[in-house]
Amino acid sequence: MTTIGIFVFPGVEELDFVGPWEVLRAWERMAPDDGARVFTLAAEEGTIECAKGLKVVPDETWATAAPLDVLVYPGGMGTRQHLGDERIRSWVRDVARRGALMTSVCTGSLVYADSGVLDGRPATTHWGSLEHLASLGKDIEVRPGDRYVDSGDIITASGVSAGIDMALHLIRRLASEDRARQIRRYIQYDPQPPV
Amino acid sequence: MTTIGIFVFPGVEELDFVGPWEVLRAWERMAPDDGARVFTLAAEEGTIECAKGLKVVPDETWATAAPLDVLVYPGGMGTRQHLGDERIRSWVRDVARRGALMTSVCTGSLVYADSGVLDGRPATTHWGSLEHLASLGKDIEVRPGDRYVDSGDIITASGVSAGIDMALHLIRRLASEDRARQIRRYIQYDPQPPV
Repeated sequence: MTTIGIFVFPGVEELDFVGPWEVLRAWERMAPDDGARVFTLAAEEGTIECAKGLKVVPDETWATAAPLDVLVYPGGMGTRQHLGDERIRSWVRDVARRGALMTSVCTGSLVYADSGVLDGRPATTHWGSLEHLASLGKDIEVRPGDRYVDSGDIITASGVSAGIDMALHLIRRLASEDRARQIRRYIQYDPQPPV
Repeated sequence: MTTIGIFVFPGVEELDFVGPWEVLRAWERMAPDDGARVFTLAAEEGTIECAKGLKVVPDETWATAAPLDVLVYPGGMGTRQHLGDERIRSWVRDVARRGALMTSVCTGSLVYADSGVLDGRPATTHWGSLEHLASLGKDIEVRPGDRYVDSGDIITASGVSAGIDMALHLIRRLASEDRARQIRRYIQYDPQPPV
């Protein structure tokens, strides 16, 4: 079984986490033999108000969640309050130390950087936060042009919608290219930005 | 002011509605002078369990929502229960008759078809429901290859992720191409499907 927790918090950007949620839960449901188990996860109980105002009720909390094989840390203005927060830093370091595959979308990588888990690694973030990312941690090699950066046990994606691409990559990595293609087709992800 | 209601219901597909939500709420917040007002809208009060299990709390209900200038009707397995439901049919016909721009994502268009508002029009839906769409309503010209179909006062999008493209098109239509581009850039929508 692969336990995947998608972190939600006040000010989490909606598409940052719902993109991966849609992709990964579709995988869980359509390919139960692959053994993925996906849930949303908050620090505490209670309804979360997201960055753009959507109200969501998390499945699990830090207290109730099973140990994570994969963490998805989305971005959004709420991440700014996480920087320098020792409770968040300890949790992130602890999840990483226990061997979870650490993934982020958008400014989620700022929190990883602030927690020290990106030291000496290549990484990316939303285009508006590239300089901020470079100012955190130690010797982070910021990659502005990458849709996502897979550095082994940490994968950081660029802004908001990039979480969809990152989550499909994750399925390819954890299951197979065929499975990732099946989920891509299910969500009819043949993007045609009209502008 | 342009009042935009995004309908949510048990079994609504998460990305179907959060794609447009992200795009349209970003527009509302980043360009307040454009006068968009965007909210989620359910038939009744209470937490909604979406198709893949995400739990969301709607902003408004049929009873409390302001009259709509735009309706976004997402898809998901929950739409199957809407077909033949006279309460849903009446509501859809009523919103259309009052002059709202009717938009749908994925199998939301099945409900429009079932309500008769797509009679004699071109339309699309998720690739897995194209035949179902053709079997509903009267003389619907199904367009399997279109990302979305704009037939004037009704816009139907194809599956799940197509709602993002449709919502950007909506901003272009209701505001300007520049505005739509600004929001596209904000959500860093430069898709690179890895498979």
